[in-house]
Amino acid sequence: MLVFYNLLIYNVNGDNMNKQETRLPKTKVGLKSFKKIIKSGKLLYGKAGYNSTSINDIISKAKVAAGTFYIYFDSKLALYLYLLDEYRHNIRRSATDATKNCKTRLEMERAGLKAFIMYVKEDPLAYKLVWESLFVDQNIFREYYMSFASSYVNHLKPFVESGEIRDDIDLETVSYILMGISNFVGLQIVFNENATEKDVDFVVDESMKLLQNGIFNSKKG
Amino acid sequence: MLVFYNLLIYNVNGDNMNKQETRLPKTKVGLKSFKKIIKSGKLLYGKAGYNSTSINDIISKAKVAAGTFYIYFDSKLALYLYLLDEYRHNIRRSATDATKNCKTRLEMERAGLKAFIMYVKEDPLAYKLVWESLFVDQNIFREYYMSFASSYVNHLKPFVESGEIRDDIDLETVSYILMGISNFVGLQIVFNENATEKDVDFVVDESMKLLQNGIFNSKKG
Repeated sequence: MLVFYNLLIYNVNGDNMNKQETRLPKTKVGLKSFKKIIKSGKLLYGKAGYNSTSINDIISKAKVAAGTFYIYFDSKLALYLYLLDEYRHNIRRSATDATKNCKTRLEMERAGLKAFIMYVKEDPLAYKLVWESLFVDQNIFREYYMSFASSYVNHLKPFVESGEIRDDIDLETVSYILMGISNFVGLQIVFNENATEKDVDFVVDESMKLLQNGIFNSKKG
Repeated sequence: MLVFYNLLIYNVNGDNMNKQETRLPKTKVGLKSFKKIIKSGKLLYGKAGYNSTSINDIISKAKVAAGTFYIYFDSKLALYLYLLDEYRHNIRRSATDATKNCKTRLEMERAGLKAFIMYVKEDPLAYKLVWESLFVDQNIFREYYMSFASSYVNHLKPFVESGEIRDDIDLETVSYILMGISNFVGLQIVFNENATEKDVDFVVDESMKLLQNGIFNSKKG
């Protein structure tokens, strides 16, 4: 089941409000065309970028008629927003799946961080998909991370109340820090083409050391 | 004085090796044209992205002749690499300036983090400039952060030896974590259009708490 945030995301921008709807296929044949469009859009947006990709490029790559594209997507923006939503949903689901048996927040952070890095390791286009929103519409980029941060704060709060997380540290800042760590330690892995799951475990463990005790020796810090 | 990394950066990619040189202006009139090209390139790459911007767009915006563009830059890639180098140099210089009177690594991290965030706050195009390298040539993006991380490791090492930084934590991972924190706490500030220097100090202080002691209460973590 996919979750659709299109309208939510795009409400932050008044322009083109009526040009970005997505309609899901209702038949098996439709689903096949829909998937071909999705796949081609992801490849082309990831390769040349959103602004350099036309609907013609997409339908030509997907080998579908222009009319078929418009059955499902109002515009190339609609397709981009669909892909971004799909990615957002997959990332969150992989974190939810990975953390469901965790007992402490520490275990949850570890499992969530590993799940994120494994995800981007398998699909490095993920970075491009999110960061190219800077060139599609900065409000999309901003909304993407602001909603992620806000959700993170809500997940952390109960653990401040239970005493597992410090109560003297701003949770919004902590959320951005945790997103920064996931994204950049993810890059550290993606940059190494030969990285294995063992390498992922290594950087995750090192990151957890920092989250547990900082990087400074307290007496000398 | 500007530092040129063009050749260094581009050596990672064998293609177009001969098409990306930059020549600095030798006259005052030349400098004026050069600056107009730089400014237009930055604006257009920042707005539409590298792939959607042509040399024609740049010279038309800068109001210079095509011949003038080629006096200084071999290609639009040359101009992009020049802008990226300039940014890289400015970022490093702002960190060096900010940390020169610091006595401990802790003070240096704080001053460096604040300098970075103040920089991107004044010039949010900075994110676009670096992240669009994903769509110019992924090797440029990779080289950009890998060289930054490698330089960070060298700066941290002496402080492990002096005992200020833990000796049981991988410095490469720490470097990516510190870059991740700078970039994402920077976004937290950039997202808030009304953010002041006081807000920057706040998020920097919260980040330093985490770098000093982690986020977990150690007994319960």
